[in-house]
Amino acid sequence: MEPASPSGIGDTSLNRYLDGEFWSLKKELHRLLGGCPLFRHRYDLNLDEIRALTFQRVKFVMGLPVLKRAIQDQAEKTKNFVSRSLVIGEVLSIADMATGVKEFVIDTPCENAEKMYIGNAMYGNYAAVFAQLIINGRSQGPHCFIVPVRDENGSLYPGVTAIDMMYKEGLHGVDNGILIFHKVRIPRENLLDKFGSVAPDGQYHSPIKNKSARFNAMLAALTPSRLAVTFQALGAMKLGLTIAIRYSHSRRQFGPKAKEEVKIIEHQTQTLRLMPHLATALALTFVSRYAGFLLDEDIFHGKEFVDSRPLQALVAGLKAYSTWENVSCLQDCRECTGGMGYMMENRISGLKCDTDVFVTFEGDNVVMLQVVVRALLAQYSKQHKEKPLVSCLRNWAESGRDKLRTSFLAFNMDTVDNLAFLLKAVNFRERVLQRSLVARIYYKVMTKKEDFFSAWNACLHHVACLSLAHIHRVTLEQFCLAVRNCPDREDQALLMKFCLLYGTKLVFQERAWYLEHKYLTPMASTKIRNQLLDLCDSVKDDALRVISAFNIPHTSLHAPIAGITNAQAAWAFYPAPLQPEPREGARFQPPKLGAKL
Amino acid sequence: MEPASPSGIGDTSLNRYLDGEFWSLKKELHRLLGGCPLFRHRYDLNLDEIRALTFQRVKFVMGLPVLKRAIQDQAEKTKNFVSRSLVIGEVLSIADMATGVKEFVIDTPCENAEKMYIGNAMYGNYAAVFAQLIINGRSQGPHCFIVPVRDENGSLYPGVTAIDMMYKEGLHGVDNGILIFHKVRIPRENLLDKFGSVAPDGQYHSPIKNKSARFNAMLAALTPSRLAVTFQALGAMKLGLTIAIRYSHSRRQFGPKAKEEVKIIEHQTQTLRLMPHLATALALTFVSRYAGFLLDEDIFHGKEFVDSRPLQALVAGLKAYSTWENVSCLQDCRECTGGMGYMMENRISGLKCDTDVFVTFEGDNVVMLQVVVRALLAQYSKQHKEKPLVSCLRNWAESGRDKLRTSFLAFNMDTVDNLAFLLKAVNFRERVLQRSLVARIYYKVMTKKEDFFSAWNACLHHVACLSLAHIHRVTLEQFCLAVRNCPDREDQALLMKFCLLYGTKLVFQERAWYLEHKYLTPMASTKIRNQLLDLCDSVKDDALRVISAFNIPHTSLHAPIAGITNAQAAWAFYPAPLQPEPREGARFQPPKLGAKL
Repeated sequence: MEPASPSGIGDTSLNRYLDGEFWSLKKELHRLLGGCPLFRHRYDLNLDEIRALTFQRVKFVMGLPVLKRAIQDQAEKTKNFVSRSLVIGEVLSIADMATGVKEFVIDTPCENAEKMYIGNAMYGNYAAVFAQLIINGRSQGPHCFIVPVRDENGSLYPGVTAIDMMYKEGLHGVDNGILIFHKVRIPRENLLDKFGSVAPDGQYHSPIKNKSARFNAMLAALTPSRLAVTFQALGAMKLGLTIAIRYSHSRRQFGPKAKEEVKIIEHQTQTLRLMPHLATALALTFVSRYAGFLLDEDIFHGKEFVDSRPLQALVAGLKAYSTWENVSCLQDCRECTGGMGYMMENRISGLKCDTDVFVTFEGDNVVMLQVVVRALLAQYSKQHKEKPLVSCLRNWAESGRDKLRTSFLAFNMDTVDNLAFLLKAVNFRERVLQRSLVARIYYKVMTKKEDFFSAWNACLHHVACLSLAHIHRVTLEQFCLAVRNCPDREDQALLMKFCLLYGTKLVFQERAWYLEHKYLTPMASTKIRNQLLDLCDSVKDDALRVISAFNIPHTSLHAPIAGITNAQAAWAFYPAPLQPEPREGARFQPPKLGAKL
Repeated sequence: MEPASPSGIGDTSLNRYLDGEFWSLKKELHRLLGGCPLFRHRYDLNLDEIRALTFQRVKFVMGLPVLKRAIQDQAEKTKNFVSRSLVIGEVLSIADMATGVKEFVIDTPCENAEKMYIGNAMYGNYAAVFAQLIINGRSQGPHCFIVPVRDENGSLYPGVTAIDMMYKEGLHGVDNGILIFHKVRIPRENLLDKFGSVAPDGQYHSPIKNKSARFNAMLAALTPSRLAVTFQALGAMKLGLTIAIRYSHSRRQFGPKAKEEVKIIEHQTQTLRLMPHLATALALTFVSRYAGFLLDEDIFHGKEFVDSRPLQALVAGLKAYSTWENVSCLQDCRECTGGMGYMMENRISGLKCDTDVFVTFEGDNVVMLQVVVRALLAQYSKQHKEKPLVSCLRNWAESGRDKLRTSFLAFNMDTVDNLAFLLKAVNFRERVLQRSLVARIYYKVMTKKEDFFSAWNACLHHVACLSLAHIHRVTLEQFCLAVRNCPDREDQALLMKFCLLYGTKLVFQERAWYLEHKYLTPMASTKIRNQLLDLCDSVKDDALRVISAFNIPHTSLHAPIAGITNAQAAWAFYPAPLQPEPREGARFQPPKLGAKL
């Protein structure tokens, strides 16, 4: 199981496939950070000390040639610069979450739309601030300004007040604060002029005439940093899973009478808790890379994000989905490692605290889910060149629902273990939820004359379900494509099992809905449950190959329970797991890839 | 909405009913701790400082006459001393979780069966240690010994090594450590002799002859401290919910065009996330009190816990259920308060970190679920005076399943909003899961000749489901009884709504299973979902009355977002909520209590 190098960084075909185009960059960066003493895991520092250390870490990182090149690429908009930045963000987060979060902001014109939670507020020299631009008493909507905050010696300029927000649950290295400006004067050149500029004569000019469209364009510019959060969450999941799975393959508890105790990974509940998360981490690997690719394509072709509604929907939805999955994954990793998981040496609890904020920052997740559905609606209405809401409502409400149902309802119960079946199921769910939502809102707004806010609010649970269904569908599709395109037969077979597990999990968790819609019979639903249990059992040894291919340096793993020695916590040490012999007659035999893929 | 006293402690009929027999004791203790400057919420101390402060807090608490009396009661086994201790533990936990956890151990003969995670290891003078008692080379099984660890000056005795485990996710005030004993000699009187003693001539005597039964009796003695964890988790839930609900009734976001933004409690997703947790907190209030009552009854009648299998099952299951509910509740409270909830000022994140360990300590939750089912099996087999496993397996496997199904299957879809229907549903689920589990294990062990461990392990997910189904059923029953017995009509009507919500939540979350078993039709299942949404909406204003009746002192609430002023974090302040006017024509009209109750 151990990779060739004792550092934890190896070179396998699976690693190259999982890390994709940037595998060698990631490997190099893992090696650099893993070998840097500054990145030794610390949890014994006070607030000032950890902030100072984070500052040192960021400084070290910014000095690395690979980072300098990435920033240069960003400035020059080199092809794929977003994707490259995203994987760098993931690797930084694995080494230290605060370093991954602080300042490494991709193409985000503004730190935050509010004046609160400004990262680096206590040290920064400049702040990017959103403010209403008022010219001759008339507001042109919010614009982004660069405001000098401190001089070279770190003293605040007159009119600027900074309040330290101090203690948070985690991310102690990030110094969030509040900036208050009182009659601060800045030259007109400090207005970031992508969406509007002021001429020397005081005249306002903007490439986007409509004020509301201008605001939307600015919000759309948040897209890359939202995707960055997904990569950071993914980094945290990989780290937590690697620790929990290594421990589960080493620690023994309970067993048959008068025999050696079994490894805890043998307990049905343990695989059931950990394996679906691992499958999800793999799924997120491929779908987030896909989103990065789309972003790069758009930028390369000079397209504004605001024109790309499906991409905005995907990124907003992925941000919500990945960060919730991360919270749930790390919680299970913590619980599956028992009291040991509660100790800071073993990293998982600290990681939980650091990443917990992801679900509410860069756009609260519940709001993100609404962004997804609004973007889907807008996209639809645009195709019909009519007014946004009304057209799509009417169009959807009037289209035949029966046709949809018949086309999807034909299935054979024997096929639930087939990727094509799982793909059809998640597709069906998304489309039914979409049509029924539109029908409900149409009825409330058009027939019952409710105001749009009330109608929307009464459907919020429905909106959230649709939004996640959309993301689930795209994610499963991307995972399936990745399986199909995998060049190595053995890797492909392994990914196939995890892909089936991921699809099975999606259908299993919504089986009530499928039963309500008679898409699953009670017997098929029971079969899905057994399939989930069997798949979890069947991949538990493959899991070691997967986490090894994540290529996380041992110094970043840190956890003694994952087999990393630590003289200060010898009591927590468990030896590194060994790759078990392949088992004969493993229960679940995954089918061949269907022609449909 | 605000209680009469500005301290946050009021005197309402609902408070008296929720706090039960000990309402005045709780009120007095809340008042004492709320008024003590030592209990001001601190999150800015280093490990040594917070440990020292916790020591001071514990010292203060132990000096209170009400605590002295409780300890005296415990020594004298006064009637209801367990229940009294449990509510004291809850109040302490609300003031400070570490104080609630440290040393306030009820009748637990040993701190821990292992040598790790020993609370107070770094300061204590004595340790209670489980060790194999070996007499003339023959083991008599583990026994509990009192071992002097440190002298009066705090220096370790020869042969004793103490290792500080240092940093954890939370509970920093509790100094967990490892004690290692090397040839430490203690006099034979230091053996706690409840389960066995050694005479001066070296002969061993025990009231329980069977070694395995002796071990079970010792484990059963953990029952009261497991129940204490439930009370502590309940305290944390009440605190988190009070903060999140007050904030949700104060903070405004989004709204109809050109109108004032609405309070976030108006958002459908917000009520859907918070109200079911509040209903669960109420349910846990009544069921945990019931468990405490049963414990006191047993002790009063001199019964050993080991003889009371249903009580052991209930307490082990409640420990798992309540601590998982707490984790999920606090996570939602954190997310529902956005970035504000991530700040330590607002208490929720610290509370999450402090209580996260509950799910794995005093017996890991997954193990607890197995204890429940084993206790249920043992109880059953005992009634039949046969060998434990075989008899009950045969008995259950052979009993008529059809009879059970017919007796429960008769229901009218119109009655899903009826408590009697919900009670029947959770009863049906428990009994079907129980019978099918026994049938599966019977088949594996008897027919397929699998060893018991493998058979059990292959059914672990089933075991977990049955275990929680059992706890859900008992909890809903106790909540229903509490509604029936409530003396105040208005309080009763309010509790009735929350009880319906709780039962609806239980059936909703398992609706896939009910659909698989054709206990719910697809239409009834959809109706359950709408009922859940409607109930959440209908209780959102009542929620203010409930959290006010929790009587949590404002100093313990601490959170500026809950309307508690704090000069150091003025930026986080939101005014305390006002009780909204009763709404006309609220959608959900709860039915009258059925005669069945």
